[in-house]
Amino acid sequence: MRLAPLLLALAVTAPALAASRETRIPDAALATAAQLREQALADRTGWNVVESLTTEIGPRLAGSEADAKAVAWAQAKFKALGFDKVWIEPVTFPKWVRRSERAAVLGEHAQPLTVTALGGSPAGTVEAEIVRFADLAALEAAPAGSLAGKIAFIDYQMTSARDGSDYRNGGAIRSKGPSAAIRKGALAFLMRSAGTDNHRVAHTGITRFDEGLTPVPSASLTIPDADQLARLLQRGPVRVSLALDCGWDGEYTSHNVIGEITGRSLPKEVVVIGAHLDSWDLGTGAIDDGAGIGITMAAGHLIGQLKRAPKRTIRVIAFANEEQGLHGGKAYAAKHLGDIARHQIAAESDFGAGRIYAFNTGAPDHARKATEQIAQALAPLGIEYAPGKGSAGPDISPFAAKGLAWAWLAQDGSDYFDLHHNADDTLDKIDPAALAQNVAAYAVFAYLAAEAEGDFGSQLKE
Amino acid sequence: MRLAPLLLALAVTAPALAASRETRIPDAALATAAQLREQALADRTGWNVVESLTTEIGPRLAGSEADAKAVAWAQAKFKALGFDKVWIEPVTFPKWVRRSERAAVLGEHAQPLTVTALGGSPAGTVEAEIVRFADLAALEAAPAGSLAGKIAFIDYQMTSARDGSDYRNGGAIRSKGPSAAIRKGALAFLMRSAGTDNHRVAHTGITRFDEGLTPVPSASLTIPDADQLARLLQRGPVRVSLALDCGWDGEYTSHNVIGEITGRSLPKEVVVIGAHLDSWDLGTGAIDDGAGIGITMAAGHLIGQLKRAPKRTIRVIAFANEEQGLHGGKAYAAKHLGDIARHQIAAESDFGAGRIYAFNTGAPDHARKATEQIAQALAPLGIEYAPGKGSAGPDISPFAAKGLAWAWLAQDGSDYFDLHHNADDTLDKIDPAALAQNVAAYAVFAYLAAEAEGDFGSQLKE
Repeated sequence: MRLAPLLLALAVTAPALAASRETRIPDAALATAAQLREQALADRTGWNVVESLTTEIGPRLAGSEADAKAVAWAQAKFKALGFDKVWIEPVTFPKWVRRSERAAVLGEHAQPLTVTALGGSPAGTVEAEIVRFADLAALEAAPAGSLAGKIAFIDYQMTSARDGSDYRNGGAIRSKGPSAAIRKGALAFLMRSAGTDNHRVAHTGITRFDEGLTPVPSASLTIPDADQLARLLQRGPVRVSLALDCGWDGEYTSHNVIGEITGRSLPKEVVVIGAHLDSWDLGTGAIDDGAGIGITMAAGHLIGQLKRAPKRTIRVIAFANEEQGLHGGKAYAAKHLGDIARHQIAAESDFGAGRIYAFNTGAPDHARKATEQIAQALAPLGIEYAPGKGSAGPDISPFAAKGLAWAWLAQDGSDYFDLHHNADDTLDKIDPAALAQNVAAYAVFAYLAAEAEGDFGSQLKE
Repeated sequence: MRLAPLLLALAVTAPALAASRETRIPDAALATAAQLREQALADRTGWNVVESLTTEIGPRLAGSEADAKAVAWAQAKFKALGFDKVWIEPVTFPKWVRRSERAAVLGEHAQPLTVTALGGSPAGTVEAEIVRFADLAALEAAPAGSLAGKIAFIDYQMTSARDGSDYRNGGAIRSKGPSAAIRKGALAFLMRSAGTDNHRVAHTGITRFDEGLTPVPSASLTIPDADQLARLLQRGPVRVSLALDCGWDGEYTSHNVIGEITGRSLPKEVVVIGAHLDSWDLGTGAIDDGAGIGITMAAGHLIGQLKRAPKRTIRVIAFANEEQGLHGGKAYAAKHLGDIARHQIAAESDFGAGRIYAFNTGAPDHARKATEQIAQALAPLGIEYAPGKGSAGPDISPFAAKGLAWAWLAQDGSDYFDLHHNADDTLDKIDPAALAQNVAAYAVFAYLAAEAEGDFGSQLKE
């Protein structure tokens, strides 16, 4: 609020000022970007990176031994890809461990159920009748105490969409369902996986328990298992046993891993692209988010291979522990807050490996022209300019909330929630051609943002 | 061989005899079959049966508690569906139990692997280097003793086909691979699942160990896990730990469950249709073989609803323990061998829930005309007559080897090996419309075979 009088003064003279400070991208840079785009489409670096990460490290749950291996891997990979500067920055967070999980229907229709603990769930063994709710609102509407001695079961089926929009509901059930269940007196929480597949692979993901509540064992069922419970409930009461061995176990310090291609004339100004290095433990983290690591490392590498470095520095960040609370993104924002104005713009790739279909930035009007120029350079990749749409990627969002300019490269997520946070998130699900299209888009975007004359509006919000 | 002179004598006068005993189906029966076909397409009984079995019993491994529940379920279901006579016949077999299974890559690239024990595998824990073979022939060609201290890994990828023809290779690896591995000195056996999916669900199935060999722990990897091992092997030697707790545990007596719609004029002559009641333990046995149970129970039921019973009896058999060695089929053949000539013809539904696309019988020339008539009645269902093709279904095959006439109703198995013997074999994979087409085909076939004037050649082979 301290700057309000000054901003008002600027606004009065806005037309003249806007003209003088409108951000633009030089024609020479646009020509180079067109070459870069075609090179990227023919290049295998993105694929090679995600193949290496998912094969050599595999699952890399934040705080696990594989977390440390992934940090070492990322440093080595940045160096091998010719990045000029490579370093790590510490990220400390509570460590959650999964040991075992088991569930079954009891009684007349006894049979095993396939479940997975939600991240953050405590350990515990419960045998009780389940009570089904169609969605989170239905559970929240249940009378207080009505679930005493019972297991709450939210049976909401997510629908797939290119933009993954129904994760709004599926994700909310996972994050808020357990606390809602506890408030009604439930002993445990079960949910139909927040997913769109029909396989016996349960979808995990972090949950949280509201302050003052005593956490209860919380797990998700595979979609066929949820179907099964729903059918059994049509026949009468259903008792279930749930045995989870998992929980919080001290603190762990991992690292954001950062690689840079140094800018030629404004090396202290940076364009940030990145992805998160951690994954859930059930798959090998190919689409979430090995793909993003491959896409952004490859884009940085290809820019680094240009005969002439871009004007500004390209900074690629492999964020630590996105999955359990954007820990890497928060740590980066906290550490670099004072440098916010030197951050030209930032974009994260964290929505799988599907083709990018739309582009926008959250930049103010004076950077609209440059945004349009980047969109034009992306158009041959089948990417639409989508003014007014988009948001910052997860690890960018804590910094964006402070005023960092962000770009949005929207991936087709039609199959993302088939694979999200489950054992099926493996390399074979990635289409190398679609991945290369992503690399091309990130390379073009990052290069052009680095070459822009003018900024995209990053400044500290008061 | 005792009958050879008589057969020769018959052959001499064959033209006259063949004309007099050519099997034919009366026009009135063909008209009724057309109505039956349309009724079946509009009927939900097949779906309701498989829904009931897979929901109320779920997985029903031969010898498990659920096996006994399934036998009780089948008796009750036959009665509820109006079968005139319902009884059980004992089937005794060795019981195999799965308790736990675990595998992991060791060392630098340490990560868990998703495996499942092959049926018949002993328990055991092994840590050793794996040696990859492209197929069974490659393992068999390895020098004797060359796998001492190692784990054999056959990495053969099955391809999908409408007729499932590549199961010839995948199935052979599962049944013969472990013994081949032992002969080369291996400590354990791993295989890429005999499947065509790309999910983290391993395919089980029975294996056998040749006489005189000491069985070793034997398991299959999911297809993405096999991909992963293959990629890791490109980087150097790979050590794996495999810990299976499973094995043979005494004998168990289950039952074939039989229901009949009594014939109106030749009640002691039977047309047999059936499927197997047991399943593997990983899924709920929907496509293998709940679908077949639903199809054949529903077909019998619909014939039973006709105003006039068919000339011969319709016998529907829910066979015990097909999966571990055709135990139910062998027991049925042994018990009913003396009645073989009263068995008009038999067909088993055991290849999933896909639409039937072809029909044939193994009947001799004198029943060719009747076979063609049935094929014509099936044609409106999109089913082709396929002379010269087909074979007896698994539980029919022991009896067919003794001379029982068989029919072949070929299902589209393009997705069968996505789901076969794995956790994904659940009800949601069945298309109710395709299932109804199967019911219609079995009802038409069984009804017309029961109405035929003349036989399909069942007689004891000497």
